[in-house]
Amino acid sequence: MTEVSRRRLLGYSGATLAAGAAAGAGLVSVAQAHEGPSSGNGPVPFFGAHQAGIATPVQDRLHFASFDVVTDDRDRLVRMLKEWTAAGAALTAGHPYGSAAGGLPESPPDDTGEALGLPPARLTLTVGFGPALFGSGGKDRFGVKARRPAPLIDLPHFPGDNLAADRSGGDVCVQACADDPQVAVHAIRNLARIGFGVVAVRWSQLGFGKTSSTTPDQQTPRNMFGFKDGTRNIPGDDHAALDRYVWASAKDGAAWMDGGSYLVARRIRMHIETWDRTSLKEQQDVFGRMKGEGNPYGAPREHDPVPLAKLPADSHVRLAHPDSNGGVRILRRGYSFTDGSDGLGRLDAGLFFIAYQRDPRTQFVTLQNKLAATDHMNEYVQHVGSGIFACPPGVRKGGFWGETLFS
Amino acid sequence: MTEVSRRRLLGYSGATLAAGAAAGAGLVSVAQAHEGPSSGNGPVPFFGAHQAGIATPVQDRLHFASFDVVTDDRDRLVRMLKEWTAAGAALTAGHPYGSAAGGLPESPPDDTGEALGLPPARLTLTVGFGPALFGSGGKDRFGVKARRPAPLIDLPHFPGDNLAADRSGGDVCVQACADDPQVAVHAIRNLARIGFGVVAVRWSQLGFGKTSSTTPDQQTPRNMFGFKDGTRNIPGDDHAALDRYVWASAKDGAAWMDGGSYLVARRIRMHIETWDRTSLKEQQDVFGRMKGEGNPYGAPREHDPVPLAKLPADSHVRLAHPDSNGGVRILRRGYSFTDGSDGLGRLDAGLFFIAYQRDPRTQFVTLQNKLAATDHMNEYVQHVGSGIFACPPGVRKGGFWGETLFS
Repeated sequence: MTEVSRRRLLGYSGATLAAGAAAGAGLVSVAQAHEGPSSGNGPVPFFGAHQAGIATPVQDRLHFASFDVVTDDRDRLVRMLKEWTAAGAALTAGHPYGSAAGGLPESPPDDTGEALGLPPARLTLTVGFGPALFGSGGKDRFGVKARRPAPLIDLPHFPGDNLAADRSGGDVCVQACADDPQVAVHAIRNLARIGFGVVAVRWSQLGFGKTSSTTPDQQTPRNMFGFKDGTRNIPGDDHAALDRYVWASAKDGAAWMDGGSYLVARRIRMHIETWDRTSLKEQQDVFGRMKGEGNPYGAPREHDPVPLAKLPADSHVRLAHPDSNGGVRILRRGYSFTDGSDGLGRLDAGLFFIAYQRDPRTQFVTLQNKLAATDHMNEYVQHVGSGIFACPPGVRKGGFWGETLFS
Repeated sequence: MTEVSRRRLLGYSGATLAAGAAAGAGLVSVAQAHEGPSSGNGPVPFFGAHQAGIATPVQDRLHFASFDVVTDDRDRLVRMLKEWTAAGAALTAGHPYGSAAGGLPESPPDDTGEALGLPPARLTLTVGFGPALFGSGGKDRFGVKARRPAPLIDLPHFPGDNLAADRSGGDVCVQACADDPQVAVHAIRNLARIGFGVVAVRWSQLGFGKTSSTTPDQQTPRNMFGFKDGTRNIPGDDHAALDRYVWASAKDGAAWMDGGSYLVARRIRMHIETWDRTSLKEQQDVFGRMKGEGNPYGAPREHDPVPLAKLPADSHVRLAHPDSNGGVRILRRGYSFTDGSDGLGRLDAGLFFIAYQRDPRTQFVTLQNKLAATDHMNEYVQHVGSGIFACPPGVRKGGFWGETLFS
């Protein structure tokens, strides 16, 4: 796996690079396709049985975008997905999109250029399709209504939800993760640009710090409450757990989703100022975990088994634990966000929660119904945005994002 | 210079760390105080003749906050500045603020905790005072009206300005720069918390990628237009240039600002979608610079002297060049920002411009009057936020931010 930088390859000096060649350079063995390095600036393989960015070791930064499809023309949508695929292969390999500046000074450059000279930074791009793409209001714009997978439900209203329409929903999503935010922002911007006339950004979210790890040997990051959460996440190399809890199967109903996964995103505003006036004991009771070491009540170390009975009955860790939920697990890839201040001078900050799972009906919905009803943490958080997306399986060489759905 | 991590020092295990001790640990030789390392996770010295974060090699990420002072009580403001100083010394050294979780489970932790375990990440905190602090509407709340420095003007209205009140002004600013955004966000949050009842956040801005370098040997970063700009910035180790263009002098009128600097911040929205439909030639004409290599028209390499006559008369580089402005130079430390999308689905993105200088009247105002009138780039940008602040000199051991003003 070579670390070809955008700079070495191109440099806007008149050379022309076909998107196909760039895509080819992104090829690596399928066996590695949902893993990739957990650090360094190198590329994460683009092609494979599963999309990258799910089991991939969690990168430091996020730019997530949800798009509305603004055309009713299925062919145009499919053409765009093919263009996105060529771009995705190039960008994740650290190349610019298309021919860069090359030969035509009278044309706009294919690539916007702000990532020229930057390494791939482990960029991954993960695409998903929202419920509305499968028909809404009786219309079946793209002829895929009959193919809507049963697990791709419209999420129910949970107690305490205060969802903003302009922070929720969408026909197509792209999760861009990278260790350099400029690389993630560049990718979303160029995909949006390629999609002009076909899709338009409905909402987007920048995440500045990961709050989950899928590599248990690495230090668990802290969220905006100052706590380690998601300590017992599904490891990205635990293939048995991934098959059981994360990867959709043809047996679940929709053959085109075999090897895909269902993404639930929630913008969770954290009431930072209230939390910061709360005692350490109250904070620890909310989690059922010590703030410093991150160990659960009744156990000395962070990664020890959780003695559930020793945790407060309404504590977050106890309520969300698999043993409290018939063994249900989800793969979390959330990020902290800070979007400045609101009109009252309070920090508009919190957690952009992202979870991948095989079936949201039995996983996220089960967990969130319980948490929304009883979690002590609800005094300090509010869900203000929401999305659910069916992320198709990985892209084969010569294929495209969504090929199994649209072919 | 040791890299003491927050984790090793503390760990919320019951140990108590006095803020004074933390501050002491931040001490290093004054000679280094406005330089510090240009990479690595270590600390940048807090104390010194000048505030850190001006000549310091530019860090990767920014969180900038502007505060209103919400009390008329001068003593409370001074007490807060002293508390801020103790906190700043601790945080920049990689320590938590105050006693961390320590002995009192019934009290809120002093430090909010989300940076526990993270290295110092070259955090710098730079404090400035806005014009309103020196009296507005005839009121002199803090008895410093007579000490307002002549260079701390109210900025004039420039052609094309479209400033939002809730993105402009403020009594006190803090610029937090670090290589890890979580460290920068943590610092602003904890200062805001310490200041509760004395100051309230008026506006804040996250910057995800630096657009300027003060270390000429490092690669010049690219802005959201995909160009290298600020190529010929003032190097942070060019003491003659710093003395001439950046550090205020007692001779300029206000003795308390001797060794300080004047900060001008501008939130510059970049019309990304328009730019992206513009030809490469037009883009390059706007800058007077090639997009790929970054070299100016008529010169082969980025750092070559600019042959001004070969650049379009309305190009940004030509207009902003010292030789076009009687030798005027400013020290730039700007960052790219992306705050999601606006109501029309366009990227709310651009440049958060930050410049330090000895006298804005002859430096920023001179340059911006010219640029606002004639810069070809004005077709693609709009200034939507603005602030000007007098940043006092560095903090001596035992002193506090603003001591020369308030003593």
